Amino acid sequence: MYRTLKKEAYEANMQLPKLGLVLFTFGNVSAADRSLNVFAIKPSGVPYEDLSPEKMVIVDFDGNKVEGSLRPSSDTLTHAVLYKHWDVGGIVHTHSTYATAWAQAQRDIPIFGTTHADHNTIDIPCAPPMSDEMIQGDYEYQTGFQIINCFKQKALSYAEVEMVLVGNHAPFTWGKDANKAVYNSAVLESIAQMAYLTQSINADASRLKDALIKKHYERKHGPQSYYGQ
Amino acid sequence: MYRTLKKEAYEANMQLPKLGLVLFTFGNVSAADRSLNVFAIKPSGVPYEDLSPEKMVIVDFDGNKVEGSLRPSSDTLTHAVLYKHWDVGGIVHTHSTYATAWAQAQRDIPIFGTTHADHNTIDIPCAPPMSDEMIQGDYEYQTGFQIINCFKQKALSYAEVEMVLVGNHAPFTWGKDANKAVYNSAVLESIAQMAYLTQSINADASRLKDALIKKHYERKHGPQSYYGQ
Amino acid sequence: MYRTLKKEAYEANMQLPKLGLVLFTFGNVSAADRSLNVFAIKPSGVPYEDLSPEKMVIVDFDGNKVEGSLRPSSDTLTHAVLYKHWDVGGIVHTHSTYATAWAQAQRDIPIFGTTHADHNTIDIPCAPPMSDEMIQGDYEYQTGFQIINCFKQKALSYAEVEMVLVGNHAPFTWGKDANKAVYNSAVLESIAQMAYLTQSINADASRLKDALIKKHYERKHGPQSYYGQ
Amino acid sequence: MYRTLKKEAYEANMQLPKLGLVLFTFGNVSAADRSLNVFAIKPSGVPYEDLSPEKMVIVDFDGNKVEGSLRPSSDTLTHAVLYKHWDVGGIVHTHSTYATAWAQAQRDIPIFGTTHADHNTIDIPCAPPMSDEMIQGDYEYQTGFQIINCFKQKALSYAEVEMVLVGNHAPFTWGKDANKAVYNSAVLESIAQMAYLTQSINADASRLKDALIKKHYERKHGPQSYYGQ
Repeated sequence: MYRTLKKEAYEANMQLPKLGLVLFTFGNVSAADRSLNVFAIKPSGVPYEDLSPEKMVIVDFDGNKVEGSLRPSSDTLTHAVLYKHWDVGGIVHTHSTYATAWAQAQRDIPIFGTTHADHNTIDIPCAPPMSDEMIQGDYEYQTGFQIINCFKQKALSYAEVEMVLVGNHAPFTWGKDANKAVYNSAVLESIAQMAYLTQSINADASRLKDALIKKHYERKHGPQSYYGQ
Repeated sequence: MYRTLKKEAYEANMQLPKLGLVLFTFGNVSAADRSLNVFAIKPSGVPYEDLSPEKMVIVDFDGNKVEGSLRPSSDTLTHAVLYKHWDVGGIVHTHSTYATAWAQAQRDIPIFGTTHADHNTIDIPCAPPMSDEMIQGDYEYQTGFQIINCFKQKALSYAEVEMVLVGNHAPFTWGKDANKAVYNSAVLESIAQMAYLTQSINADASRLKDALIKKHYERKHGPQSYYGQ
Repeated sequence: MYRTLKKEAYEANMQLPKLGLVLFTFGNVSAADRSLNVFAIKPSGVPYEDLSPEKMVIVDFDGNKVEGSLRPSSDTLTHAVLYKHWDVGGIVHTHSTYATAWAQAQRDIPIFGTTHADHNTIDIPCAPPMSDEMIQGDYEYQTGFQIINCFKQKALSYAEVEMVLVGNHAPFTWGKDANKAVYNSAVLESIAQMAYLTQSINADASRLKDALIKKHYERKHGPQSYYGQ
Repeated sequence: MYRTLKKEAYEANMQLPKLGLVLFTFGNVSAADRSLNVFAIKPSGVPYEDLSPEKMVIVDFDGNKVEGSLRPSSDTLTHAVLYKHWDVGGIVHTHSTYATAWAQAQRDIPIFGTTHADHNTIDIPCAPPMSDEMIQGDYEYQTGFQIINCFKQKALSYAEVEMVLVGNHAPFTWGKDANKAVYNSAVLESIAQMAYLTQSINADASRLKDALIKKHYERKHGPQSYYGQ
């Protein structure tokens, strides 16, 4: 029944090691079927080389396992909360090197250039570390709300900004499907590395001017976008 | 009719991922036939693994599509302007990591060593970010003029200096053919990385002395050059 | 007799170049059979591509060679001391780039994020460089005691903290078996790289809050751990 | 006649791209037959993928071509001078990233750890940039003398210290044969990277203590060395 969904999740998960975004099992991708209110996600702690489409676990948007013999990713509840509240089709969590370093530094990633503006019009937000109450409660569930609350407080749209850093933790990205979410993870890692280098070269580097932000974002995303086929 | 030209452009484009200069589709190469006033360029947003010589798009030096079923790279007008004003045979645009970081830092890359001097006698120029008028006008077309104006203001020759950073954006390189332009992109990325490290090791590192600049450049490019076969 | 043990040591050694943790022969793994009080270790100075299970050398916990035609790793006595005093099943020594840089800087690696907390609740300790007496004595033997003394002085448990930096030298890791010890070496290298970047991005980056340290460590290691299958 | 020598030079040259030490043709290895006073060296500007043993060029210790249809490396005279004055069997020149950055920074590489001490008891010397007279004269020939003079002034032995940085230029390494010289190039690059990171982590990092320098060097090189088989 969930064969296509599992295959989508499997193939997206297998992109993570290819793109250099994970060490061992430190990452996971899920793919949602929004008509059925379920998503397929990587099983917890299983090495990528041992994965297969059949091993993906089906979970509903409240975090209940629907199908599968393995235990789903320990981050499953974070995925569930985001699917429940946001209309997205795929979610990725990694500990990719440069994005995680910015999360550990508790810094938004400044918008320094057009590579960034091709994908976001703002600094990539870093949600603050969670309160002790949230951490000691249902941790992964609360991680989802920490992300949602960060977007509310900053008045950001998840449809426009498809990536976030969770302070002291690591990045999450999403998109219309699992493939787009993986794409966003790789883009975020590249932006994070270039921003790190930019600050190292010029500690006073200035943020991108508004006209250039607008132009590049609209080239790819505006109503008159002219990128791609 | 344009079979050879398309093949040259295709093969040069395929070098970019091999040399580690592009993530996804963030780059493009064109190859010109100056007797016909046309160039072949990568189609917009098509992944490198899906490219073929047939998919290259033929465009004239005013930016009009001459042949091809796909939409050409969104940076096509920048290529067209440079071909129109400069007698070059190939152009490359990438967002390679270190060169882009210098562009984002809005800094010329200082000439710190002989690797740099083997290819340029001056700091690699970083054109300032464009004015709002240029950005809001025909952006890619104006990007070409921003590069040309930078060379005019600094009294540089495009025949001697085959690379530039566009401030807040990324590098462009060119050469007698597409292959040489790709070579220049890889050389620029290496020079950018080593200059970054040099400054990090010694914040007061001094520029190369004139005698050494002259010697290394002439070894490869002067009338008595003795590098290669 | 030691066929299984040699195979375990061989396969764990072969992981080091795959994981990018060694240049040439700068690293070694051993695997212990605690019921027999022996361990299998890499022969000294033999390139990884020339290794085979048969070439592993069997040594007892006092450092005496028990079986094998080749000379064991020059670091053998350090392994022997650790096996003699600690109930562990595998030990790894590398000169991996980022972990070694922290050891050379004589700095503990601060706990900046959850990747670190998934594996340790404290900063990764850097043992001070050894005294001249220890160095001029039985050096590799004393290196083992330097590690043990560091853990005693800091009141650390080798069962909880499975990695250490030896000041001015390089990292050692261990675990219940050789495979886990290799896993720890790769994790340490990744943590070391991310901590370096974190400090570079934000010189005032703060250590992880206690609630988050406790949560992440117990997710993987506590009595109610829920990571993996 | 020179078949074995050419093969040795060819195979050593082919190690450079495998070890990540060269971009395009920016490097060369030579192998000497000291009984015949000749060496085999890479032809100038030929890509590594187009090399073969037959294309190696035979040159005598005065820099005269003895055999071969191609032009030898533009750095040939530097190799010749070193062979003429020093009893070594192989020489390597690269523009490897981190070693070149230290050369551009005109800084000796401080001895920060045992990886360094396993190969050298001193900071890796950076020869000062050459005088204008030397540069404008027979440049590559004088580069050899700049290296030799640096060793004389610092009272260093080429038999003990098998690597040098030429200020503003790049590293040279040597050894008893071409293979050892290539090994030294890779070791130098690794030491250079770790020293860069060490200084970045701790700007006040101290040099290795004498007892540790002595111990590690003698482990590998002293009369009672016990590393390897």
